Amino acid sequence: MNQTSNKTADNRNQGALIVSCPEKQGIIAAITHFLYENGANILHSDQFSTNPESGQFFMRVQFQMDNLTGRLAELRQQFSLIAEPFRMEWKITHPSERKRLAVFVSKEDHCLRELLWRWSIKELNADIVMVVSNHPDMEHLVTPHNIPYYHVPVTKENREEAADIHLELLEKHQVDTLILARYMQIMPGKIIDRYPNQIINIHHSFLPAFIGGKPYHQAFNRGVKLIGATAHYVTEDLDEGPIIEQDVSRVNHRHHVADLKRIGRDLERIVLAKAVQWHINDQIIVHNHKTIVFE
Amino acid sequence: MNQTSNKTADNRNQGALIVSCPEKQGIIAAITHFLYENGANILHSDQFSTNPESGQFFMRVQFQMDNLTGRLAELRQQFSLIAEPFRMEWKITHPSERKRLAVFVSKEDHCLRELLWRWSIKELNADIVMVVSNHPDMEHLVTPHNIPYYHVPVTKENREEAADIHLELLEKHQVDTLILARYMQIMPGKIIDRYPNQIINIHHSFLPAFIGGKPYHQAFNRGVKLIGATAHYVTEDLDEGPIIEQDVSRVNHRHHVADLKRIGRDLERIVLAKAVQWHINDQIIVHNHKTIVFE
Amino acid sequence: MNQTSNKTADNRNQGALIVSCPEKQGIIAAITHFLYENGANILHSDQFSTNPESGQFFMRVQFQMDNLTGRLAELRQQFSLIAEPFRMEWKITHPSERKRLAVFVSKEDHCLRELLWRWSIKELNADIVMVVSNHPDMEHLVTPHNIPYYHVPVTKENREEAADIHLELLEKHQVDTLILARYMQIMPGKIIDRYPNQIINIHHSFLPAFIGGKPYHQAFNRGVKLIGATAHYVTEDLDEGPIIEQDVSRVNHRHHVADLKRIGRDLERIVLAKAVQWHINDQIIVHNHKTIVFE
Amino acid sequence: MNQTSNKTADNRNQGALIVSCPEKQGIIAAITHFLYENGANILHSDQFSTNPESGQFFMRVQFQMDNLTGRLAELRQQFSLIAEPFRMEWKITHPSERKRLAVFVSKEDHCLRELLWRWSIKELNADIVMVVSNHPDMEHLVTPHNIPYYHVPVTKENREEAADIHLELLEKHQVDTLILARYMQIMPGKIIDRYPNQIINIHHSFLPAFIGGKPYHQAFNRGVKLIGATAHYVTEDLDEGPIIEQDVSRVNHRHHVADLKRIGRDLERIVLAKAVQWHINDQIIVHNHKTIVFE
Repeated sequence: MNQTSNKTADNRNQGALIVSCPEKQGIIAAITHFLYENGANILHSDQFSTNPESGQFFMRVQFQMDNLTGRLAELRQQFSLIAEPFRMEWKITHPSERKRLAVFVSKEDHCLRELLWRWSIKELNADIVMVVSNHPDMEHLVTPHNIPYYHVPVTKENREEAADIHLELLEKHQVDTLILARYMQIMPGKIIDRYPNQIINIHHSFLPAFIGGKPYHQAFNRGVKLIGATAHYVTEDLDEGPIIEQDVSRVNHRHHVADLKRIGRDLERIVLAKAVQWHINDQIIVHNHKTIVFE
Repeated sequence: MNQTSNKTADNRNQGALIVSCPEKQGIIAAITHFLYENGANILHSDQFSTNPESGQFFMRVQFQMDNLTGRLAELRQQFSLIAEPFRMEWKITHPSERKRLAVFVSKEDHCLRELLWRWSIKELNADIVMVVSNHPDMEHLVTPHNIPYYHVPVTKENREEAADIHLELLEKHQVDTLILARYMQIMPGKIIDRYPNQIINIHHSFLPAFIGGKPYHQAFNRGVKLIGATAHYVTEDLDEGPIIEQDVSRVNHRHHVADLKRIGRDLERIVLAKAVQWHINDQIIVHNHKTIVFE
Repeated sequence: MNQTSNKTADNRNQGALIVSCPEKQGIIAAITHFLYENGANILHSDQFSTNPESGQFFMRVQFQMDNLTGRLAELRQQFSLIAEPFRMEWKITHPSERKRLAVFVSKEDHCLRELLWRWSIKELNADIVMVVSNHPDMEHLVTPHNIPYYHVPVTKENREEAADIHLELLEKHQVDTLILARYMQIMPGKIIDRYPNQIINIHHSFLPAFIGGKPYHQAFNRGVKLIGATAHYVTEDLDEGPIIEQDVSRVNHRHHVADLKRIGRDLERIVLAKAVQWHINDQIIVHNHKTIVFE
Repeated sequence: MNQTSNKTADNRNQGALIVSCPEKQGIIAAITHFLYENGANILHSDQFSTNPESGQFFMRVQFQMDNLTGRLAELRQQFSLIAEPFRMEWKITHPSERKRLAVFVSKEDHCLRELLWRWSIKELNADIVMVVSNHPDMEHLVTPHNIPYYHVPVTKENREEAADIHLELLEKHQVDTLILARYMQIMPGKIIDRYPNQIINIHHSFLPAFIGGKPYHQAFNRGVKLIGATAHYVTEDLDEGPIIEQDVSRVNHRHHVADLKRIGRDLERIVLAKAVQWHINDQIIVHNHKTIVFE
């Protein structure tokens, strides 16, 4: 949350250290001591352990350091010495190393518009480098932003070829994050495998309720009193990926499917935008099919 | 909602007319004309149609009428003449004809306490006439209110006999509404059949997610970001009955199952209390496995 | 709510009757009888009385009638005969008679974008006929929609002249509803007087808390745990007009003013959009500085 | 939040260290190093700085340590050496040192009941050692719990004498926290001065809206669409104390003052219970008339 406000100031001297390792006494002391020795100011830190005695430990520290841009390589090298004995998986991120996003979209425009708007007002500290669609309809929204728009039709027959085209485009634009902004196509395994925990989908229900197609019809038929939206990472099991964010809105017996869709649109775009924001800032860690979100 | 405030005034002259019939032009005109002819003042009315041309029509009118208590029998007789050509199912309710509730409870006390408290401050315009439990633990909460408490142990073996005891007690106390206030036993068919749309259960999840036992464990394992509670009418299909009310609370990766239970308790008692309130005031109509709630 | 779904079907045969008059027995019977006699099907009706014996009565009925477009003039003439003895203020609305909106905006674009988007996907059954701003910045968002954009600078000195230009433009475009979409200027009395209960403002706080300028700074300084947004009709008393809709979001000690602004943007656009939707559909009645919203 | 779950296990080896001091590099490293050296396992830690370069720094660390009960005195002594050069205000808390609560109540019972219930199911890790009221009405709720109930009438004339009796009772029962559970009397300065940031009040509005008496009447008259409740520390300025927690519920034009009171009750008890929970666990720090809540 507080990233944004700090970012409004010059943020070139701000980085984040993200760590995951088996629980062991002294991890936090070692990390904070390292940062102190290197003259860093801790702006915010958060950590979590699945079990304080034998579980997995996770930490995210945001810090400020003079001349961080210049010292980044050295800092990483030095931290690897701390990391090794603890068997840490880790990274140090820097605002200059922005994630590169590809947005996939079909015929519904609300999620795409939301992301383009937040990006255009610099709320998203990332680059939208391409938009892909199985329809030509959204091109007019994208090209004014000087973002390439690729129309790749997908049918039952050409699914494999389409995936190859997608992979080629993702490669060409050096994409690291895929956002399925109401892209109503199943992602083939070869794309999922290539981008583990890097593909975010927005599902228009409160998962695990109403998995699969037409969730608003399912919600209408079941007579629920709240409808939801869920942003999650995409895994091979459809709609079973780690949940990043969810929210709900109240509905009643007067609402037809068309109303649920209309009300749901407002949920979907806010929920997706939050998930994308957290992913971009490396605030999410996936562990055991669940997410740890350091807000 | 507005019942309560009206009720604070003398409510003996206030009744409600509830109607359900096949859609046909002129129903509302006929009903409101009837009430006008009989000198009634309409306080609030609500209606709903599944389809304005060929669907089912539902209406609930709250009205005020001088000397209503004395005129009730006559009014009902007269309305039956209006009702017949429209093939209406209908009833006229009066605050003096209070529903008689039986509360079923196991070892969790929060829902029972909530109902007893709301009843004791006269928020519930109904009588709690008995409490049944498969455990003796809650007796001390109930007897100070001069409500009989029945301890009926239920095991796999004696399920049928226990149901017979339950039916006998329900009969004896002339119960018309059963409230399963975290009663962790399956209701046998012979009780469900005897009390159609008169048994309210509180399920500790956002249905249809996490049907069945241990929903908080399921929620923890799936890593949802909101937990829920659902009040519904009990039908033969477990957790598939018509939903009356639902609500959710936010949770995160730090919350263990014990936390979900704690947070969930606050949801359960509020959601159940709302459902019971609406049922008592005849604000709910069940149609096609869904509820119409005239708030 | 249910308007939208009905509207997706052909809605030329759907109208709404809105009535306000002193409470008296038989009003509802008279209205519904009139509609029945004229072959109308009531789709939805709602009514409210400030006091069932001596208060003010309000009703809104949505109905369907064959060849409504052709019969509209006749229907209005006939209803005036019903209305007179009850001293009703009333109107019959028809989807073909769309409201004409002017949007006023300063430098924040999120509310304007929201309205343009909802209008472009036909969620708003109205016409945005002009956009006015005291800055030139938003022109590029507006002109692609073929909506005229007027840049009218406002200073302390030229406030009166600016108001005259505004009135002239509003007249020229036959505007009936003004939407202040984060237009950070005070509306002069001569505009407010000309458009009573026809000017909607979005205030970025939970009114009546934090009246006046810089509400997010005030909220930050007070240390509130929720921030809000309020859509209201504009009256001469700044931020004192009848409240149409409000909502809130959770914040905490980590959120700086910049964060409150960011989080608040999402509230403001949703709250304003709801208020505009209700106003356009004539679902709002103002009485005693408060609103009755027939959802 | 996660306190509870940890507490279900044996919590005698769990403590919390709370620190406040001027911002300076190396604070976190010094604290975590100290804990590591003493064999502590950090269960959860949170920190906040009003400004990372020159502001005030706050931290709360929950930790586990073998034989903590036995080592508590020594640990405190040792930490004072760390604390001194940083000019820390600090404390180390232990579950065995439970806060001692006095609940003040008038004629509304819902907040008192809520606290008694949560205390009886051991959700509150504290002792309710006395209940005081200006009315005798609530005695029957309190005495079954073996908690002394003091009826101290308060009138305009005897306010000072009543305060003296209160102070004597608080002293006698070694109270450290006062909870005004809808105690409709103004706290005199001599009590407030004696218990700074130790008196929690529940105000039945969304502060700073509707300060003072009869907030539900004020809310009704203003026509707000949400009503709220606010838990705050009591200071000399009525309803101006640091806000701990707030929440809101939706209302509409149909709700009379009696409905707002009824709906508000559910808000008040949940909001107050949360604030009390956080206070008991030393999760709240007051700074500049605002609260930092380490959830």
